Amino acid sequence: MLKVIAEDFIHPEAVEIVLPLYRELVACTRSEPLCIAYDLFVDQKDPGHFIFIEQWPDRAALDTHCATEHFRRLVPLIDAHQRSPGTFLLMDPAAL
Amino acid sequence: MLKVIAEDFIHPEAVEIVLPLYRELVACTRSEPLCIAYDLFVDQKDPGHFIFIEQWPDRAALDTHCATEHFRRLVPLIDAHQRSPGTFLLMDPAAL
Repeated sequence: MLKVIAEDFIHPEAVEIVLPLYRELVACTRSEPLCIAYDLFVDQKDPGHFIFIEQWPDRAALDTHCATEHFRRLVPLIDAHQRSPGTFLLMDPAAL
Repeated sequence: MLKVIAEDFIHPEAVEIVLPLYRELVACTRSEPLCIAYDLFVDQKDPGHFIFIEQWPDRAALDTHCATEHFRRLVPLIDAHQRSPGTFLLMDPAAL
């Protein structure tokens, strides 16, 4: 199981522009057969700081997601409004 | 609903020391009546970078968690092995 945190930093004045793009990205991604979870959150202290928390069966499923038409079309449209580069973090469950 | 990401940066040589502390913290926290989710992950690129992904009904529930005996006892024991200060991020679901 692969957990992902992907963070975007959007110019505050562009938040209303990116929201419908995020809406379409979330809807399309959740319809991917390998998607386990794909949820989008906003930093309570920064309305332009968006955080995806994702779950995929494995890295291959994430790579498939990143190659989809909706990802390749929508992510550049969102990134055009970034104020700084996005980050991502790939994680495994802790071996407790 | 409140989503939380809390990140710890532990000295690599102390990972085996903190794992049983995390194990107890996760077990005790999940038994709190207001805890919705409390999961611990590890950065695939950094075995000392631990990431909690939490869900609480609201800020009051998180504050109650931070005041529990297990939190106040275990977190300082974990933090003694930090290589840099932890971070936390409070989030709301995006208004899609």
